[in-house]
Amino acid sequence: MRAARLHEYHQRLKLDDVDEPKAVGPFDVVVKIGAAGLCRTDLHIQEGQWAEKSQVSLPYTPGHENAGWVHEVGSAVTNVEVGDTVIVHPFISCGLCLPCRRGDDMHCVTGSFPGINRDGGFAELLQTSARSVVKLDPSLDPKDIAALADAGLTAIHAVKKAIPVLVPGTRAVVIGAGGLGHIGIQCLKTLTATEIIVVDPSEPALELARELGADHTIKVEGKRHIDAVQELTDGLGAEAIIDFVGENGAVEDGISMIQDGGFYYVIGYGQNIDIPTIDVISREISFIGNLVGTYVDLQDLMTLTAQGRVTLHTTTYPLDAINDAMNDLDQGRLQGRGILVPAGAG
Amino acid sequence: MRAARLHEYHQRLKLDDVDEPKAVGPFDVVVKIGAAGLCRTDLHIQEGQWAEKSQVSLPYTPGHENAGWVHEVGSAVTNVEVGDTVIVHPFISCGLCLPCRRGDDMHCVTGSFPGINRDGGFAELLQTSARSVVKLDPSLDPKDIAALADAGLTAIHAVKKAIPVLVPGTRAVVIGAGGLGHIGIQCLKTLTATEIIVVDPSEPALELARELGADHTIKVEGKRHIDAVQELTDGLGAEAIIDFVGENGAVEDGISMIQDGGFYYVIGYGQNIDIPTIDVISREISFIGNLVGTYVDLQDLMTLTAQGRVTLHTTTYPLDAINDAMNDLDQGRLQGRGILVPAGAG
Amino acid sequence: MRAARLHEYHQRLKLDDVDEPKAVGPFDVVVKIGAAGLCRTDLHIQEGQWAEKSQVSLPYTPGHENAGWVHEVGSAVTNVEVGDTVIVHPFISCGLCLPCRRGDDMHCVTGSFPGINRDGGFAELLQTSARSVVKLDPSLDPKDIAALADAGLTAIHAVKKAIPVLVPGTRAVVIGAGGLGHIGIQCLKTLTATEIIVVDPSEPALELARELGADHTIKVEGKRHIDAVQELTDGLGAEAIIDFVGENGAVEDGISMIQDGGFYYVIGYGQNIDIPTIDVISREISFIGNLVGTYVDLQDLMTLTAQGRVTLHTTTYPLDAINDAMNDLDQGRLQGRGILVPAGAG
Amino acid sequence: MRAARLHEYHQRLKLDDVDEPKAVGPFDVVVKIGAAGLCRTDLHIQEGQWAEKSQVSLPYTPGHENAGWVHEVGSAVTNVEVGDTVIVHPFISCGLCLPCRRGDDMHCVTGSFPGINRDGGFAELLQTSARSVVKLDPSLDPKDIAALADAGLTAIHAVKKAIPVLVPGTRAVVIGAGGLGHIGIQCLKTLTATEIIVVDPSEPALELARELGADHTIKVEGKRHIDAVQELTDGLGAEAIIDFVGENGAVEDGISMIQDGGFYYVIGYGQNIDIPTIDVISREISFIGNLVGTYVDLQDLMTLTAQGRVTLHTTTYPLDAINDAMNDLDQGRLQGRGILVPAGAG
Repeated sequence: MRAARLHEYHQRLKLDDVDEPKAVGPFDVVVKIGAAGLCRTDLHIQEGQWAEKSQVSLPYTPGHENAGWVHEVGSAVTNVEVGDTVIVHPFISCGLCLPCRRGDDMHCVTGSFPGINRDGGFAELLQTSARSVVKLDPSLDPKDIAALADAGLTAIHAVKKAIPVLVPGTRAVVIGAGGLGHIGIQCLKTLTATEIIVVDPSEPALELARELGADHTIKVEGKRHIDAVQELTDGLGAEAIIDFVGENGAVEDGISMIQDGGFYYVIGYGQNIDIPTIDVISREISFIGNLVGTYVDLQDLMTLTAQGRVTLHTTTYPLDAINDAMNDLDQGRLQGRGILVPAGAG
Repeated sequence: MRAARLHEYHQRLKLDDVDEPKAVGPFDVVVKIGAAGLCRTDLHIQEGQWAEKSQVSLPYTPGHENAGWVHEVGSAVTNVEVGDTVIVHPFISCGLCLPCRRGDDMHCVTGSFPGINRDGGFAELLQTSARSVVKLDPSLDPKDIAALADAGLTAIHAVKKAIPVLVPGTRAVVIGAGGLGHIGIQCLKTLTATEIIVVDPSEPALELARELGADHTIKVEGKRHIDAVQELTDGLGAEAIIDFVGENGAVEDGISMIQDGGFYYVIGYGQNIDIPTIDVISREISFIGNLVGTYVDLQDLMTLTAQGRVTLHTTTYPLDAINDAMNDLDQGRLQGRGILVPAGAG
Repeated sequence: MRAARLHEYHQRLKLDDVDEPKAVGPFDVVVKIGAAGLCRTDLHIQEGQWAEKSQVSLPYTPGHENAGWVHEVGSAVTNVEVGDTVIVHPFISCGLCLPCRRGDDMHCVTGSFPGINRDGGFAELLQTSARSVVKLDPSLDPKDIAALADAGLTAIHAVKKAIPVLVPGTRAVVIGAGGLGHIGIQCLKTLTATEIIVVDPSEPALELARELGADHTIKVEGKRHIDAVQELTDGLGAEAIIDFVGENGAVEDGISMIQDGGFYYVIGYGQNIDIPTIDVISREISFIGNLVGTYVDLQDLMTLTAQGRVTLHTTTYPLDAINDAMNDLDQGRLQGRGILVPAGAG
Repeated sequence: MRAARLHEYHQRLKLDDVDEPKAVGPFDVVVKIGAAGLCRTDLHIQEGQWAEKSQVSLPYTPGHENAGWVHEVGSAVTNVEVGDTVIVHPFISCGLCLPCRRGDDMHCVTGSFPGINRDGGFAELLQTSARSVVKLDPSLDPKDIAALADAGLTAIHAVKKAIPVLVPGTRAVVIGAGGLGHIGIQCLKTLTATEIIVVDPSEPALELARELGADHTIKVEGKRHIDAVQELTDGLGAEAIIDFVGENGAVEDGISMIQDGGFYYVIGYGQNIDIPTIDVISREISFIGNLVGTYVDLQDLMTLTAQGRVTLHTTTYPLDAINDAMNDLDQGRLQGRGILVPAGAG
């Protein structure tokens, strides 16, 4: 089958012909990819940022945001059948360790992460597990919902952590209204009554944010957006910063916009948090890490989507055009989430 | 009256004769100081670390950990009378703003902080408010409990935040078993069933930690304590780091000892948190700021003390020997908490 | 001044001329009533249901849902001035006891409750406290917002408790879309993404519920509404029952509509909860009591109202027509909340 | 194999010879019973209280509190091997439905409950699932820990729910210091700093409660224990009632001992909760149902036991003497938990 593979860090992906994966273990599920989302993490993988953490050996196939149809199932799989439309939770967890039993799938002690540390979905077929597939209404088109599998999942996971903080009268600053941020805004809107302030350097991104319900949108330009947030919050800053960017100065900006006693949700990444502990204690501010989301988070998100409370904004590319898509993402030309579709899918 | 005042940053305090404070407003309470605790923050004040934040004008009187007897009350004070033994919550809050109404005193929008931004308790008398005094059993001696007003209060505030994390089977690493840490250990012991690991460079501090119920104590020496924690936690690290030090490498060490999905409680301060956001998200770790504690936290602590679940370890100095006490603290010669007693108190 | 007073249980209120209240204590605030809401509790008071609990001596003035303008202030009041438009939190709390310091005003150990155990707002003037008034924009008309002071406050208090339960995909059954219920629906809508099912015997009430965002409305008729809820929930019942009625069979119906593991929020009252403990444990269901709300709840609600997320539906009567209003409420002829306006108010 | 089976409600169990269960499905695990705990629920089953709920067909084998050694495993079982010492979580859950993915095993949509609605552990062998077994240190003797599988599990589940309520200075009234209660006391002791008040009609049970750390013990005699609790709580009642009895007047007594704003944890059962809703709202009290506990709760409890924080008090009977054991339990002659041991186990 065809797969877009990384052979060397800092190089473009290559379109290779590789062997098809099989459902070998009793719980294996092989999914025919209908659509695979493109993530800023794929750029970071190409740049080698994940090389040490993932320990993956090259060449391999990225792509951790997948949806499609069940192609083959292992002997003990009962929750899906061949032909079912599914969205794929990005992590493969064991279901038996203590974190799994707590519902905290992402910290499974023996989990693996297709697209990060084993072959992912920039291909025609993907091997995953019965625990990682959510069966969907057959009328759904994978390319319309694939971006929920990681971008959406990560956004709702962080927003759900923020709910107890975001009581009426609070303000949340969303940094970045791109692939994740535009879903985060909708989750905030439907799950809280906080006032949503979106900052982004792109006018079309801010336009989208307004359509999706942002109460205030501010263009990032020098320190102007910081002043604007201070003005909107009587000089106090916002109770929550939800940072979908995490690079290019976003963290310093975010720290300047947070209220004493407030919470900073770290989602985007790239630069460092670097802050004197005296500020952390005298201002009593907290930084909350966020790693994708649980299977339950994905179910919640599918529910909100089915109810029409969350909708996706995407741009579609054929799988063979993956390097164009990666360039567009890198250059800030991608509106919403980029989606790759293998030839013949659908 | 006599007061130990800071006239210039980086200089020793001077023992001055100053005017006595009065109960001017209807809720003012003037307390005759029976004992005032000495805090690492007093060293940081002397070093000028707080100059910009507090905006205090020199000379002024530090001392934010106070207990004694009510000396004078304003016209509308109903909760204490002249002569009552009291411990003094370190912050003066208004009681009417939204944070106060939520019980979140420390974020009062018009609060002030005796000893930090106005005259504190290294003196014979202290002006505070009806909202800041807790009436105690008259048999209690201020010098035996003054250290609860800040060291203890800060410790219990952080530990209370950690309770939901510290379920059975978890491990908490306490960094530093000094003035705050030795109370933190006791709070952990009585409020959770976590396994307590204490790291400290001082053998007597570790000995005290063992007496107070630490499950494991490890001497800080190079990176040996990090290895020891990894060994005790099967290479996973601890679910919580409770850092009462925050300087001299404590933060890097703490980050090396934290489990994926874990929480880092920042209490001590001095150096920076400096960590790549990719680590924050891929490990899903969080940093929680802690600023002293609420009036309710202080009440909780007084209850635990009355029940014998928390006991203090202190070293007493006369107020006039304050600079000796500060030297001892700075040099790590102070066991437990240092307590200053004005001449004639008691 | 004129006041509508209860002289005998089971009798109509009488319009009397009584002495005006004064701001005697330093924190007293006397409010000129602009509008006072009428509550089902006023009927229950008339019926004597509260006689033993409140220990009030007759005659006295009911009315616990008040808004108006500050008429006189005690010597130490700083948060409002004569002439300010205010809404009145229904409870007078001390601000110094432990529940008050926790933000849990309603359990103040020395609190009092105008309209329940002392003179309330069915009058031209009301004596309350600085801690019980929320200053409002002068453009607001008391009769448009008075119903937030109790009906709205009680509704938001219960809904806030339910937020952690009402995750995406859950269903909440609201029993009763009257004075409280129609605000509860709006709070659910803005604070959660639960699916809202409203049951009520009145078609106009259901019509209002639909306008306010209910996802499903069902007319109460025999057991038909129970069957309808079971059908909407695949025979499982709803994760939460929010019962604004609590009499006339509402509780049995509610218990029949609750999902295993679910929560029953008790707000309306009149009949008993009577359930075998074997059902409570085998179904793991919980019953949550709700008593009005805190000052912070009232602030939250004023914020939601200012943001246009909550609007009130009211019917206005002159104070002198109070017995007509009470009859209309008793007979189910009152749409939304009934509001009494003294002659000359406004 | 030998099994003690119920052939008719209200009749004694019969010792029958029946076929051995097999590991048919890929996740089946057959456990050789080392010990099975006897529960008040077994009496209630015999009395027919569960007949309608469980829909079990007679004859069948009760026994839902089991420990032993793995006897046979299905083809896909990886977490245990033949010969492993295990404790058996009483419920068989699917691991794939939403409640299971949340970690809320007891509300699995397709679960079954050996000993309640299918054959349980009053036998030589028990069929269960890979998801229901916790592997233990081989040195542990099943009869020493079997009672943790249900009595202990139910106790810790309820206590864990109460942790946020039981802050310092609160009081918890434990009703009943028997099989569940004596574990509940230890869980309260190690997981909270609440003051523990135990009420029980049996002096030896109170003696055991004192040994295990109860702060106050009161003999149930008429209404004397209610007065005693009121006295210990300054007439306010306790913040939490943890009712392990639920019959013979326990519920009325419990309601008389609860503080306004407090929580009643329902664990034991038999009689009704019957309370006017006006009391539920005016006192803002809540009733919390508790159904056994999750797999994680069982893990937590095994940890506390391994740490020596929880110890069991048991009385052992041979399986053939089951009817004697049931009589002893019914007559209040059983101290701690009754444990049945098949001939040849161990």
